[in-house]
Amino acid sequence: MSLTVVGSIAYDAVKTPFGERERMLGGSAVHFALAASFFTQVRVVGPVGEDFGAEDLAVLTERGIETGDIETIEGGKTFFWQGHYEHDLNVAHTDDTQLNVFAEFEPKLSEASASSDVLFLGNIVPDLQRNVRAASSAGFAALDSMNLWIETARDSLVAAIGEVDCLLLNDAELRQLTDESNLAKAARAVREMGPRIVVAKRGEYGAALFTDDDAFAIPGLLIEEVADPTGAGDSFAGGFLGYLDSVGAESLNGDELRRAMVFGSVMASFNVEDFGTERVRSLEPSEVESRVADFKSLTHFNDAPLATS
Amino acid sequence: MSLTVVGSIAYDAVKTPFGERERMLGGSAVHFALAASFFTQVRVVGPVGEDFGAEDLAVLTERGIETGDIETIEGGKTFFWQGHYEHDLNVAHTDDTQLNVFAEFEPKLSEASASSDVLFLGNIVPDLQRNVRAASSAGFAALDSMNLWIETARDSLVAAIGEVDCLLLNDAELRQLTDESNLAKAARAVREMGPRIVVAKRGEYGAALFTDDDAFAIPGLLIEEVADPTGAGDSFAGGFLGYLDSVGAESLNGDELRRAMVFGSVMASFNVEDFGTERVRSLEPSEVESRVADFKSLTHFNDAPLATS
Repeated sequence: MSLTVVGSIAYDAVKTPFGERERMLGGSAVHFALAASFFTQVRVVGPVGEDFGAEDLAVLTERGIETGDIETIEGGKTFFWQGHYEHDLNVAHTDDTQLNVFAEFEPKLSEASASSDVLFLGNIVPDLQRNVRAASSAGFAALDSMNLWIETARDSLVAAIGEVDCLLLNDAELRQLTDESNLAKAARAVREMGPRIVVAKRGEYGAALFTDDDAFAIPGLLIEEVADPTGAGDSFAGGFLGYLDSVGAESLNGDELRRAMVFGSVMASFNVEDFGTERVRSLEPSEVESRVADFKSLTHFNDAPLATS
Repeated sequence: MSLTVVGSIAYDAVKTPFGERERMLGGSAVHFALAASFFTQVRVVGPVGEDFGAEDLAVLTERGIETGDIETIEGGKTFFWQGHYEHDLNVAHTDDTQLNVFAEFEPKLSEASASSDVLFLGNIVPDLQRNVRAASSAGFAALDSMNLWIETARDSLVAAIGEVDCLLLNDAELRQLTDESNLAKAARAVREMGPRIVVAKRGEYGAALFTDDDAFAIPGLLIEEVADPTGAGDSFAGGFLGYLDSVGAESLNGDELRRAMVFGSVMASFNVEDFGTERVRSLEPSEVESRVADFKSLTHFNDAPLATS
């Protein structure tokens, strides 16, 4: 089993009520790959500038992630994002975005990356996502996006969505995309665009899964130590798709989809405990297992004797 | 077992994207009592005006609710609330509030109401909540409140909270009350004020329960037909406390608390399906049982084989 992710590799400057970092490794492909690496073999496709440090590449390779398709653009600078969070950590405020090497990015997939079993199209320009999908022979593809593309490249985004098996999106963006305020109805409208699996990411409130046969919802873990939510959604996607790839995404069943949601939530919960990649890069598999048990304890209930009158 | 609720009995004018009603039965005590009546004997304490209709009183008595402590104020008018909801049904916009008989309300508890096993102090002036608590011999008391009292009567509210076993509050209000952005820490701060049980109501996202020994979180049911969220929080409280009273709130254990959360969520999910009390007043116990099964199906997952690497 193997999983290819295309997306941003970035330096982030982030300030939250709990601290700040002026320049740290980030980006959708990085957060995704680190989380997914706990479950399967991951290959990253994306551009960096000449300023990209060997120590940052090592964060990926130390987790066994294949980085051969990370392309260093001569004379280029790595994608840079600056943002902050206030009291409500569900809302990221963007202060600066420098596309740098991403402005001219044309993804090139090696044969190994193109032939992975699962493909994750991280949040980039929808037409690029379509190009990558067309170049890949993955039997299962998933896509993330954002409000910017819903507003500025809607037709391309809808076409890209029509070419994948699974859409992961924030719940507010699902509503925006479908102009449907009810989440279950919005998910149904997305399934009519093509994907048979829709995952609504709900920040600290957890996530919900919709297929034609099933609906599943989980709360977020009630973490007391939240430092920085940046990358939580990508860590969720990494845990979700990493687990699905590990059990065979093409032949998955409802139970496995539910377990994938739990692993996604668990990986996101680690992500937010420290800045950027700092928590997940030092995570042990035993900690993942332990937190799945915590998650079960948080959400489990016994059948009630129904003393209704 | 028996349960007394003190709170508003109201006429509401509500407009949502899915319809509107110019004048319908509402109020925290009404929504609470209807939901709780599926589990235990409920007594309502509160004032109405001379305009309060016999057909509205019958909505309560037909569910077996004791209305002897509903006081008709001579020459008075019933509490009136007007509000609307836009695309985001989690946010109620208040357009008009006429306290009417509530402006001078002094709760009087009959001996039967005072000696109920469980007392619910619906969202009214904190000093009135304290008076009712002092007049009641209930072994278990719970309280709801709102941002208005946090802002205008904070000291009284904190004192009232210190005199109950359980606080139910919206998550944003828990944060506001404790000045703590992290929900788990906010709940801990509330427990230090007195209550050993804290329930965070999270609107469509469900609810979370905190005690010294336990944390439990549930998503909301993913209802496609949402007409009017007014009263959902009180219906949650009614299902929650009604179930607790039915099993003995004074000697409850963690499993029962979790089941109570599920019943609360189920009753809230019915409440939102139609305007005001229209859905719950015609609900059958078998529908409650069926929806508990739906809820289990929505949230259940099997232990995952941990193929982490």
